[in-house]
Amino acid sequence: MPRYKITLEYEGSAFVGWQRQENGLAVQQVVEEAFFRFTGCQPTIYAAGRTDAGVHAAGQVIHVDLEKPYPCKTVLEAGNFHLKPHAVSFLAVEFAARDFHARFSAIGRIYEYYILNRLAPPALKRGQVWWVKQPLDISAMQQAATCLMGKHDFTSFRALQCQALSPIKTIDEFSIHQTGDVILCTVKARSFLHHQVRNMVGTLKMVGDGKWPASKIPEILAAKNRAAAGVTAPSDGLYLTKIIYPQIEDAPLNH
Amino acid sequence: MPRYKITLEYEGSAFVGWQRQENGLAVQQVVEEAFFRFTGCQPTIYAAGRTDAGVHAAGQVIHVDLEKPYPCKTVLEAGNFHLKPHAVSFLAVEFAARDFHARFSAIGRIYEYYILNRLAPPALKRGQVWWVKQPLDISAMQQAATCLMGKHDFTSFRALQCQALSPIKTIDEFSIHQTGDVILCTVKARSFLHHQVRNMVGTLKMVGDGKWPASKIPEILAAKNRAAAGVTAPSDGLYLTKIIYPQIEDAPLNH
Repeated sequence: MPRYKITLEYEGSAFVGWQRQENGLAVQQVVEEAFFRFTGCQPTIYAAGRTDAGVHAAGQVIHVDLEKPYPCKTVLEAGNFHLKPHAVSFLAVEFAARDFHARFSAIGRIYEYYILNRLAPPALKRGQVWWVKQPLDISAMQQAATCLMGKHDFTSFRALQCQALSPIKTIDEFSIHQTGDVILCTVKARSFLHHQVRNMVGTLKMVGDGKWPASKIPEILAAKNRAAAGVTAPSDGLYLTKIIYPQIEDAPLNH
Repeated sequence: MPRYKITLEYEGSAFVGWQRQENGLAVQQVVEEAFFRFTGCQPTIYAAGRTDAGVHAAGQVIHVDLEKPYPCKTVLEAGNFHLKPHAVSFLAVEFAARDFHARFSAIGRIYEYYILNRLAPPALKRGQVWWVKQPLDISAMQQAATCLMGKHDFTSFRALQCQALSPIKTIDEFSIHQTGDVILCTVKARSFLHHQVRNMVGTLKMVGDGKWPASKIPEILAAKNRAAAGVTAPSDGLYLTKIIYPQIEDAPLNH
């Protein structure tokens, strides 16, 4: 049974999230049903990140074992055909090693968060940005983001229902860029706690609109209390953008 | 009665176009109804461009006379409040001169057309791009676009139902830029014939995928026959982006 690594894009608005739930349609279900219609089998699918309801993906990665060695292009085209009419698309399909695991082989994850910072509500990017009316101070947000970088106990930024064993995580990168009225927050870490990105962005917004100084971030971290940090930013603006895997070394040439 | 110039954004997918029609909801109707709920009056609204069904706007301009001199910020905020739940948004509101006319004062119009050029169908930009699977040759498309610039008889690129008195138009700018898998076509002219941008982009796509050489464009123009040009590109990728008005000179100071 060959193993495939598949990169996918989805618009999360219509879904209850990646993982199957009782209360609505999950991306996982849509992908599994597409495989069933394509292959006649129901393979189990593993994703790198379990995105929440309403969260989008521009580069989610899954792995799946199929019964037959279909060419990668066939998996891509048949997959996309059977994913219709859902807003889920296979961007790339590759063969993967037997020990490749979409979730456990990942050594980094990049999330992007888009804020639309203007007086007028979004029409073109509805459901795909967080609309913040009051002007945000980008340089204060950048300072606050810098305070969140590195290794910390992120209890204050972790959803109460988070199941991770440890609240200690390392943020490798946290950049804030403004282009016109769009503010893009890019966060990279090996892994994240539940709601961590949205809770960090919600806190940066409190700094950006002047409610809190950037210097409050160390206090918030030290409090180790979810109530000390800011609101959870809405799912609309969040994109799982890239999953990083170790560089696979070329197999030694047979001399 | 003060006159207002209003810049607006809309996602065209749900609309039959700008202008009121028998067969569905028009953007014009949504805007007029918002004004009715806001002011209690039903003002007449004039738009710079009458976009077709499914076409989007990032910078449509309208003018409207209101009975009372509301502050511009009030018009923007009350307008956006009453435009809900439609994907239409007032981006900017200004006072305009008595002789300002959104359509007749305009001296230039810029449209953008987005092609998503990749094997995978769009999930995040569904309804907002033209998905073209086969790889397009950008430099051939750029050559073809250059042939369309300047003053020509555009009969070959005009919808049969077009009501313009003359088929002669001048294209001031026609650029093609690629960023990743997105191809952006930007076209500027004083005004356009019905379906002209979509018919030009449909023809550029025939050049991009190698069906026609760029050198065929002068022949197509010379044919003065709609059947000589390419397909009409779908409405999904088209955005009315900017309306250009003459620079208003500052009123002379009262010494």
